[in-house]
Amino acid sequence: MEIIEVYNGKKFGDVNNPLLVSCRSGPRVSMPGMMDTILNLGLNDKTVEGLAKKCGNERFAYDSYRRFIQMFADICMGIPHSNFEKILSGIKNKNNIQFDKDLTTNMLKEVITEYKKMVKDTVGKEFIQDVKEQLKTAIHGVFISWNNDRAITYRNLNDIPHNWGTAVNVVSMVFGNMGYRSATGVTFTRNPATGDKIFYGEYLINAQGEDVVAGIRTPQQISIEGKKAQHSDLPCMEEAMPELYKELYEIRDKLEKHYKDMQDIEFTFQEGKLYLLGRRSGKRTIKAAVKIAVDLYNEGIIDKEKAISLVDAKSIKELLHPQIDPKVKKETMARGLPASKGTSCGKIVFNVHDVGGKYKDCPVILLSKEPTYNDIIGIHVVKGVVTTRGGMNSLVAVYARGKDVPCITGVGDMIIDFNKKTVKFRDKYVLKEGDWISISGDTGEVYKGKVPIIPLIISGDFETIMKWADEIRHLKIEANVETIKDALQARDLGAEGIGLIRTEYMFFEPKKIISIRKMIVAETEEEKRKALDEILPYQTKEFEDLFKIMNGLPVTIRLLDPPLHQFLPETEEDMETLAKEIGVKLEQVIERASSLKESNPMLGNRGCRLGISRPEIIEMQAKAILTAAVNVIKLGKKVNPKIMIPFAVSKRELQVMKDIIDKEQKKLEKEKRCLIPYTFGTMIELPRAALLADQLAELAHFFSFGTNNLTQTTFGISKDDFSYHHLYRKSGIIDVDPFSVLDSRGVGFLIENAIKKGKAVQKDLKCGICDEHGCDPKSIQYADSIGMDYVSCSPLKIPIARLAAAQAVILNKKK
Amino acid sequence: MEIIEVYNGKKFGDVNNPLLVSCRSGPRVSMPGMMDTILNLGLNDKTVEGLAKKCGNERFAYDSYRRFIQMFADICMGIPHSNFEKILSGIKNKNNIQFDKDLTTNMLKEVITEYKKMVKDTVGKEFIQDVKEQLKTAIHGVFISWNNDRAITYRNLNDIPHNWGTAVNVVSMVFGNMGYRSATGVTFTRNPATGDKIFYGEYLINAQGEDVVAGIRTPQQISIEGKKAQHSDLPCMEEAMPELYKELYEIRDKLEKHYKDMQDIEFTFQEGKLYLLGRRSGKRTIKAAVKIAVDLYNEGIIDKEKAISLVDAKSIKELLHPQIDPKVKKETMARGLPASKGTSCGKIVFNVHDVGGKYKDCPVILLSKEPTYNDIIGIHVVKGVVTTRGGMNSLVAVYARGKDVPCITGVGDMIIDFNKKTVKFRDKYVLKEGDWISISGDTGEVYKGKVPIIPLIISGDFETIMKWADEIRHLKIEANVETIKDALQARDLGAEGIGLIRTEYMFFEPKKIISIRKMIVAETEEEKRKALDEILPYQTKEFEDLFKIMNGLPVTIRLLDPPLHQFLPETEEDMETLAKEIGVKLEQVIERASSLKESNPMLGNRGCRLGISRPEIIEMQAKAILTAAVNVIKLGKKVNPKIMIPFAVSKRELQVMKDIIDKEQKKLEKEKRCLIPYTFGTMIELPRAALLADQLAELAHFFSFGTNNLTQTTFGISKDDFSYHHLYRKSGIIDVDPFSVLDSRGVGFLIENAIKKGKAVQKDLKCGICDEHGCDPKSIQYADSIGMDYVSCSPLKIPIARLAAAQAVILNKKK
Repeated sequence: MEIIEVYNGKKFGDVNNPLLVSCRSGPRVSMPGMMDTILNLGLNDKTVEGLAKKCGNERFAYDSYRRFIQMFADICMGIPHSNFEKILSGIKNKNNIQFDKDLTTNMLKEVITEYKKMVKDTVGKEFIQDVKEQLKTAIHGVFISWNNDRAITYRNLNDIPHNWGTAVNVVSMVFGNMGYRSATGVTFTRNPATGDKIFYGEYLINAQGEDVVAGIRTPQQISIEGKKAQHSDLPCMEEAMPELYKELYEIRDKLEKHYKDMQDIEFTFQEGKLYLLGRRSGKRTIKAAVKIAVDLYNEGIIDKEKAISLVDAKSIKELLHPQIDPKVKKETMARGLPASKGTSCGKIVFNVHDVGGKYKDCPVILLSKEPTYNDIIGIHVVKGVVTTRGGMNSLVAVYARGKDVPCITGVGDMIIDFNKKTVKFRDKYVLKEGDWISISGDTGEVYKGKVPIIPLIISGDFETIMKWADEIRHLKIEANVETIKDALQARDLGAEGIGLIRTEYMFFEPKKIISIRKMIVAETEEEKRKALDEILPYQTKEFEDLFKIMNGLPVTIRLLDPPLHQFLPETEEDMETLAKEIGVKLEQVIERASSLKESNPMLGNRGCRLGISRPEIIEMQAKAILTAAVNVIKLGKKVNPKIMIPFAVSKRELQVMKDIIDKEQKKLEKEKRCLIPYTFGTMIELPRAALLADQLAELAHFFSFGTNNLTQTTFGISKDDFSYHHLYRKSGIIDVDPFSVLDSRGVGFLIENAIKKGKAVQKDLKCGICDEHGCDPKSIQYADSIGMDYVSCSPLKIPIARLAAAQAVILNKKK
Repeated sequence: MEIIEVYNGKKFGDVNNPLLVSCRSGPRVSMPGMMDTILNLGLNDKTVEGLAKKCGNERFAYDSYRRFIQMFADICMGIPHSNFEKILSGIKNKNNIQFDKDLTTNMLKEVITEYKKMVKDTVGKEFIQDVKEQLKTAIHGVFISWNNDRAITYRNLNDIPHNWGTAVNVVSMVFGNMGYRSATGVTFTRNPATGDKIFYGEYLINAQGEDVVAGIRTPQQISIEGKKAQHSDLPCMEEAMPELYKELYEIRDKLEKHYKDMQDIEFTFQEGKLYLLGRRSGKRTIKAAVKIAVDLYNEGIIDKEKAISLVDAKSIKELLHPQIDPKVKKETMARGLPASKGTSCGKIVFNVHDVGGKYKDCPVILLSKEPTYNDIIGIHVVKGVVTTRGGMNSLVAVYARGKDVPCITGVGDMIIDFNKKTVKFRDKYVLKEGDWISISGDTGEVYKGKVPIIPLIISGDFETIMKWADEIRHLKIEANVETIKDALQARDLGAEGIGLIRTEYMFFEPKKIISIRKMIVAETEEEKRKALDEILPYQTKEFEDLFKIMNGLPVTIRLLDPPLHQFLPETEEDMETLAKEIGVKLEQVIERASSLKESNPMLGNRGCRLGISRPEIIEMQAKAILTAAVNVIKLGKKVNPKIMIPFAVSKRELQVMKDIIDKEQKKLEKEKRCLIPYTFGTMIELPRAALLADQLAELAHFFSFGTNNLTQTTFGISKDDFSYHHLYRKSGIIDVDPFSVLDSRGVGFLIENAIKKGKAVQKDLKCGICDEHGCDPKSIQYADSIGMDYVSCSPLKIPIARLAAAQAVILNKKK
């Protein structure tokens, strides 16, 4: 404080020439508007008189005191804002005044007297007059605001750790409320919504910062261009105060060049003198971010690396999503968790089986209480999913994200009557099957009716940024793909191969699931093989199509992974239908289903374990893949099939699997008189696989890290459950959900160990990530830093991964 | 073969002086009687004549040929033994002969002719005459016998890896069937059943080894003492062939002194000349093992370390088990998996709730289809458990072993009718509730009625061995304890503290479970605390009693671990009862139960996660422990409470838990005016905990490795499931069940890493194992080798652990 006093030539608490300060929050990353600020601190019944005398502006002094009491009592004493509003409007009404600015000095003095009385009545003691006590209390109050609800929510949404805490800055005051040559405002160096290069912001004459926020007076625009853009009638600064505007504009240019980014500037003119209160890189829409980055490069202000760093990789996906028309009025029926981004309209269905029938040529949205694994079938065919239960990481959410189907989970206000086929939202809206609704997976909102949706636009700047990213990045980007549509989209969006085909998706299609079910229920070897023979041609065809599309790029196929019971229906009714369909007794179906039931399916009989007990499945899949390969080779095309074994924890498991595949390979090569190459590899998704990676690498030529499963088992946390993630985030025990951002300390240790051990044995071992972490920028940065070779993610997230991989190179270089 | 020919002065296949050989298996460890042997190889229609001429004993030659054909055709050509028996008895009957030895040369020739004809008729080709072809085929046959059912079963039972394989030894023949100065036999240097120092064995005159095994002739005893012990009427070797006996006896002494162990000797006298065919350390009962070890030490043949090594630690537990009287005839109704050792009789009940009522003062055995976690209550009060489903590592099996309650699982032949309260075994025996049955958890057999049981006897030699073990071992041995009875027994059996109290057991008692359920269903903070207040005095009392018994030895208490839903009933009927009992609506109970349901409970909301969401439980438990401690301190006794946090993966979780406990500690210390010491520690049961052990060790003063959970998550295998363990053992993919023997490569890496990192931070960090691996000798050896400080196991297994810990020191010294 002494330094500030010397610098300003004033003394804190001096009755003749008082120093006033503000207390502001200073978190590690900017959290605009989330925490509290106290202005005009240092005023009391004595110093206010001194201030008035010193600056010869009594009204200003009392206005400042009035403001200080209000802010301090609100933030540090918990007195509701409305208490003050009541007094203020009372006095304005009595004097027949509409605006605060018209309050006279005497009126302000009356306001202050009543404020102080109200404070004493409410908390039982006088408003603090000791300025040092004021300062201590204010600092404490600003610290405390780190944990207000707004700030917590903001941190949750932006993955900011709750245990970071904040600094509190004490700064000497300047005043925008010293008369009509004083003003305060906030401005962006470019339009944060569009990225257009216009000086864009608002200011208020004779006011303090809080007035801009409070919205009591309508702020004026800074520039003529801004005025046009905002259709404002009020005179802008460029018109009203051209000199001041000029000074500000020069600073705009200087700041942008210095910080090499679009800036958000907070300023005050005190009697014509410009003070900059703060600056930061301005928040902007993703669309604006891309344009600004390219423009700044073209203007010679930044280089390509900086341009790439200016675009938030995670948000770039939004450029590919259709958007709800922001100009249209919507009626929100309910809210849930935004589990999978995107927007869609469709007719309500309550059961995926209804999709094919009367809604055949119509977009539908599935409303469900708690979808089962079997409902995965629905996700292929519906345009959106809304569930009553489940969290951000429930199974349906994960799959929906993978499939890029908009999804909202945990809509507690949605009550479905499956008998009547109706749904009730918030006891207010009752809809029935076939009614139109719209949903936004970005916000978690469910709207009534069919809301207009603006189709996807990719601007040229977006393409430019992507090109630059590709020049810089080291990681290859591949796609998680199941259908031909996926594969085509993946190539359009820049995928350099298929990093993961989950073959079980292919089985979930209605025609094939019957055959799979037959195989599961079958009792003799012969019946089992017969059922698999039915599937063989389908699988072969599908692999063939994918090979053709990828034309020599890697196509990584994971053999069957989930436990068999997931293919069987769950209710007795469905089992009865199945029994009839496949021509066995109901008892047989029930018995098989119950014998396959597991208490912890996540740790169950799945992946290559299944392949050991049912080698005929592996045989069939190997045959399908290799036959498809040879068919495509014979067309004169290139193929690069990579066969991947899930859930292995030992070399011996891999050996058994490889022997089966190699046998099929030899047989086919002889039969078709053609060499059929394939690459053998494994998922690393269990701690033991990572720990024994050197042994696995004796057989495997690539490792694909199944980071979801690896996280589940390393933490001992089931992904399907949400509650304690939430709880743990709230308690500050974990900084981020480890299913969103790879846990570099625990899970990462295992991964690094596996890469190191694996590459020591198999020099050209290719290592990648094929779970959702593969499109998380932080996880991608980590992957780049530990020598990973590729990441694989769902097609629509390819641009995220491309950009994030380039940013990773830049960030890791800095480290 | 040339070397053998030169050495014997005979040629293989020589028609004048043929060399005969035997083909024998040679596995890494002895598997007595499990694999095949072929004798007299090298005989054909020509060489048999040469042999007859050369040794001047035509009958012997043809007898040998007859035996060879039979053995070779059986083992290498798959012709059933009965085919030969039929021919042989046919000819004996025709000639009115009773014993093989009375067959004349001509009769033997006839037998051979018919054998060869039958062989040709059965397999379509002549019996092999080419001796080299015979040899090749025989070697192959013996190799193949590595995978016969007997051998596989034996390896499964003895944890011998299936992928070890075997050698095949080709050895020149000597003949015990060359007349009445020839004989063959097997003898033990001491009585393998009792350990008594008598020369103990059997022999047959004019016979080959197979005759002893086949049991066609009654063998004679070796020594007079043996004859007495076996109540034999036939002349023993000591009487009938005193000179030969003397020679054999001298060798007995020599071998025992050389090998420093009781020997099993296979011998043949060929025309009065002694040949030793083989020796190995003799199989013996655990009772004999203990006596032999102590006797050999007392006789000056071995030292204490060797004596300790001669006793199988795993088997020593049997010395503490009551045994079914072997002399009594039993009626076996069904067989299952021997899931928990021991023997008991009791009346049948089908529901644990029935135990208290009319069977109050009566031993009962619970028969169940598939016990739930709640049935754990039953395990405290029943004398045995038999289940239709489940495996060796199902939950009930693990708990039964922990509680030392005999248990048989997977009795597929047991069908329970819960309505009629009857049970049917093998469609043959129908019993009802209250009927007596007996079970042996050693063999997996269920007997009809009440079978006499011999009570437990601990011999003085057993005590001697234990004393020697205690002198040598480094590891401390603690006990897993829940009740006062457990604690007393643990101290009697030598426990040096309590390594684990699972506090949830204390909650499962009927009185307390109501309070816990009230707490779970409660909606307000106040109701929750009220319910916990009901439990507090019980918990305090229980801890007090345990502190008193352990009198200053460590008492390690694990705070509540399982997910809350496990305390709620599962059926709607039970929920209704509960709702009435605790005075809430049924809907409330159902709603709570369903909201607590988890898809993978093993990875669910449990351990310290529960403590984060429901800190009042931790508060109550801390209060109970520390109050109990202060109460005991005030009696002038010593206490050493160690509080252990389950399921942590981060330091922050530990910090939250420790803060709660410390707060209670400070409060109580002030209130009681007394220092209350406690040691804070954590379970390491998830990979991440092991990987971040350095951070956990900043707060934890001890690590207790929960190796069951650690194995589950490292392998991604749910312990409750059996089928693929079984499958994997069978396919040779795993050598041993990792839940029985600690996986040193994968799980062990994590443990070693955790100990190293932990001790680097916390120098006096104590590390131990508290799961079932804590009483597995191989795992104990591993624990000793990596610097573990203690192991903890159920009270009855303390002697195993004490002995195994001493053996570990000896074995690790050798390495």
